[in-house]
Amino acid sequence: MSDTKDNSAETQAINERHRARMERKKAVIDSKIAEAQKEIGIIIVNTGNGKGKSSSGLGMVIRAMGHGMKVGVVQFIKGAMSTGEEKFLRRFPDEVSFHAMGEGYTWDTQDRERDTEKALLAWQQAKAFMADPGIGLVLLDELNIALKYRYLDVHMVIADLLERPDMQHVVITGRGAPAELVAIADTVTDMTVVKHAFNAGIAAQAGTEW
Amino acid sequence: MSDTKDNSAETQAINERHRARMERKKAVIDSKIAEAQKEIGIIIVNTGNGKGKSSSGLGMVIRAMGHGMKVGVVQFIKGAMSTGEEKFLRRFPDEVSFHAMGEGYTWDTQDRERDTEKALLAWQQAKAFMADPGIGLVLLDELNIALKYRYLDVHMVIADLLERPDMQHVVITGRGAPAELVAIADTVTDMTVVKHAFNAGIAAQAGTEW
Repeated sequence: MSDTKDNSAETQAINERHRARMERKKAVIDSKIAEAQKEIGIIIVNTGNGKGKSSSGLGMVIRAMGHGMKVGVVQFIKGAMSTGEEKFLRRFPDEVSFHAMGEGYTWDTQDRERDTEKALLAWQQAKAFMADPGIGLVLLDELNIALKYRYLDVHMVIADLLERPDMQHVVITGRGAPAELVAIADTVTDMTVVKHAFNAGIAAQAGTEW
Repeated sequence: MSDTKDNSAETQAINERHRARMERKKAVIDSKIAEAQKEIGIIIVNTGNGKGKSSSGLGMVIRAMGHGMKVGVVQFIKGAMSTGEEKFLRRFPDEVSFHAMGEGYTWDTQDRERDTEKALLAWQQAKAFMADPGIGLVLLDELNIALKYRYLDVHMVIADLLERPDMQHVVITGRGAPAELVAIADTVTDMTVVKHAFNAGIAAQAGTEW
């Protein structure tokens, strides 16, 4: 960036165009922020086949903790492996309540009845978090998988979600979010694979994947 | 889920089809895992207009900390606002080295020369982290924005990334990742907006957005 100390007419023109563009951008953004004033608990869904669904949910847990909120985490499906996030979050028992359904992925258990029972127990824990207005954010990790395999009924789940305290945020992750859930959610993101190291023969590694 | 205790022939058939399907799925996944054995530091890029780019990077920081790794974080562009993640990460000075470029978004400063100088200073800090094999994961938050506005030269950035220690992971976030960076990255995800609460008049709130 050798041009940064350069005071040529060309550089001055570039800098002035940048300033004018940013000034217009700021006006648009300030006006949008002025319109978006409602503060209310929202439902966030992270779905799609790409990386970042659970890790983003975990990031929001950390943001909430940074603001002094209490957090509830229920891990559906995952949990057979002692993940980095579980190890870390268990260091803060006063701030984070953690429930792992355990038993690993559905293709490990291959037992629909047992998975359904475990999912219903995990949902009871989720409902307990959603009955507590002292909990500012609830992460329902991989809930979409439990819905996809019909371990839990989507209408029951939605009814319980809509009864939670007004200011409580809920983050739901997992591939294949059902349309009914997307319809009632406030923010929905599809994590789309552009490329993935796994497909180049690189293992799932500590720190990045678990 | 009243059918979970039901032992009718229909339910047994559903359960058996589920088991057989999961058995086939497990075989496919086990074979893919057997092929993906290489352990090496990877470059992960989170881009796109949707939610979850920075929060997912933050989640990977937490995973790495859960595995006892040391982490370096450089926040490009953001930093005017004291975010929840910064507050939280500053609680762990022995585990996380944190550098915020400060000064807020480009549309707040409207000053290209000052932004460029700050970005170059932040890159020096990133290079220092990438020269230290004791750091297992480096998060370069919003680096893509600094590249998009050409505060930093993408070829310089790529050359420095490729010289880092073999086992070090790097996570890069921000909209509009340049094609040159995507080309050399191992895992790239496009966070695609399905819907966003902000567009329904809901403010960016503590815990979920910052």
